[in-house]
Amino acid sequence: MKKRILLLTTGGTIASLPTDRGLSPGLNGTALAGLLPQGVLEHYAITVRDILHLDSSNIQPEEWQTIARHVYENRTQYDGIVITHGTDTMAYTASVLSFMLQGIGVPVVLTGAQLPMTHPLTDGLDNLRTALAMAASGTAGVFLAFDRKVILGCRAVKTRTTDFDAFESVNAPLAATVDGKGLRIHRQALPVPAGSCALRDRLCDKVFLIKLTPGLDPEIFDMLLQMHYRGIVIEAFGAGGLHFVRRDLIAKLHAAALAGITVVVCSQCLYEPSDFSLYEVGQRALAQGVIPGRDMTTEAAVTKLMWALGQTAEAAEIRDCFDRSLAGEVTL
Amino acid sequence: MKKRILLLTTGGTIASLPTDRGLSPGLNGTALAGLLPQGVLEHYAITVRDILHLDSSNIQPEEWQTIARHVYENRTQYDGIVITHGTDTMAYTASVLSFMLQGIGVPVVLTGAQLPMTHPLTDGLDNLRTALAMAASGTAGVFLAFDRKVILGCRAVKTRTTDFDAFESVNAPLAATVDGKGLRIHRQALPVPAGSCALRDRLCDKVFLIKLTPGLDPEIFDMLLQMHYRGIVIEAFGAGGLHFVRRDLIAKLHAAALAGITVVVCSQCLYEPSDFSLYEVGQRALAQGVIPGRDMTTEAAVTKLMWALGQTAEAAEIRDCFDRSLAGEVTL
Repeated sequence: MKKRILLLTTGGTIASLPTDRGLSPGLNGTALAGLLPQGVLEHYAITVRDILHLDSSNIQPEEWQTIARHVYENRTQYDGIVITHGTDTMAYTASVLSFMLQGIGVPVVLTGAQLPMTHPLTDGLDNLRTALAMAASGTAGVFLAFDRKVILGCRAVKTRTTDFDAFESVNAPLAATVDGKGLRIHRQALPVPAGSCALRDRLCDKVFLIKLTPGLDPEIFDMLLQMHYRGIVIEAFGAGGLHFVRRDLIAKLHAAALAGITVVVCSQCLYEPSDFSLYEVGQRALAQGVIPGRDMTTEAAVTKLMWALGQTAEAAEIRDCFDRSLAGEVTL
Repeated sequence: MKKRILLLTTGGTIASLPTDRGLSPGLNGTALAGLLPQGVLEHYAITVRDILHLDSSNIQPEEWQTIARHVYENRTQYDGIVITHGTDTMAYTASVLSFMLQGIGVPVVLTGAQLPMTHPLTDGLDNLRTALAMAASGTAGVFLAFDRKVILGCRAVKTRTTDFDAFESVNAPLAATVDGKGLRIHRQALPVPAGSCALRDRLCDKVFLIKLTPGLDPEIFDMLLQMHYRGIVIEAFGAGGLHFVRRDLIAKLHAAALAGITVVVCSQCLYEPSDFSLYEVGQRALAQGVIPGRDMTTEAAVTKLMWALGQTAEAAEIRDCFDRSLAGEVTL
């Protein structure tokens, strides 16, 4: 029997058509699926639902909730769910869905394209085919399919603006690849399933990301406190450096901790973990109660903090979240 | 005759020794050079000067000026200058020196290490040897030497926290490589020399970097205006996306432009250029007067803006800086 696949569309380049002011989402899901060859379509029983119609730069926490609810409500009627999405924020959406839909029992696969589906050289054709195969594979979890690779949702980062090979699996092996044997699932790359699924879609949008630059004025922390931010993610230098000579960021971490702000520190290096135990500077930061981001991507750290702060106001519970891998987002 | 090399030391892991609170800069330049094998040392006439003694997380605009002045004052007495520096902010220092010392007539080569020079497996040995060879090569310009590669200073990004292969040349070919033919200079990768060198070391430290996250509250722009920032670099989504639905960042770009703030927009994707002409969202941003960062690294965009604002308060002159490649930092 054909696998039942739900195709949720949200807009993005894959569904774009040229307008006077540049590309803008134009195709609906039926038109999108209709651009797949008949020989591909006949493998699946596809149901289409258009839920959003946006350039992914405009996909924000409210849209994440909309997408999560559609997935959650349909999870038992389908064998798998494919979500088409713009590439620009797809890694954020894939990360946050991993937290909102922990324990989801079916494959949920985000995909999109660098060239519109109507372009004769579109990569959307390959990407949709990979996403459909992954959605039909019975491999539960949230994934991102792109350029013949399937990445664990919470490990994906968009690293190239134009190349078809636009996403990388950062600090984690690929979940699946496409080659002469078809879709090859890499089971050892999959996280341990998280038990039964509940929709936990509350998010806190008062999380700010600071990518450090040399000489950054620590006063920004006072401003963020005034603006009632509840969480700060810092992309520190290298393995975890922050300046404290003349402009004392370490003192501000202390003030933020006293004010009840959760601070997570990761690295602005794309690859490899941060490690605060290594240098005197990092040890000083840890002593102020910051949470180490370890090898999480920035996309995962930001969305995990938004999610954790949406679930609880208890500092200990938030810290506990970060001491665990919820969906394979961190190596402990 | 042996090439005269000036070795300027600033601290960093390469010069670190273990302390109770983690690694901290401990070795001076004479001790550092003394750890090179005699067979390497005898190729060069090395003069050592210790100018700073810092973990590079604490190297900030004031230190950039100190380093630039030492290089400038010594440029005619030596065939080349090597600067040892912590890896964490080395890409920022290499970028800003490229702007401050445009037209420098000798090689200026930054290097460092992931393991201290006293460690039996240190990469500092290889890195210093590459840096010395580049400094003796007669190839004028600011470079970063690491893991047998020489990168144009304003194209370097630290991408790995731990691996010896810690730096990448982003959107530009390598300036030189080490192989069985020794140091191989890639002349076609070098920018056209910029004419005579003047020390232009004035910098504006009121530049803020915003790495966008979905749902970012546009109010941050009001705060930055209140804090008297003069420049903002935005790492936008993908090729140049910013959200404007519900939370209108585009309107804030307009307000920033009216307030005389210079806004440069580049991509949070590590590789490949941003392109604002492509999507409706990007075209809206351009219409607000933002300066496209094209294929510049974030390190280069931030330091170029700090440098340009340090040279002039004229918006047209700043824009003109960004319409030109000053040191090979941008592909036009």
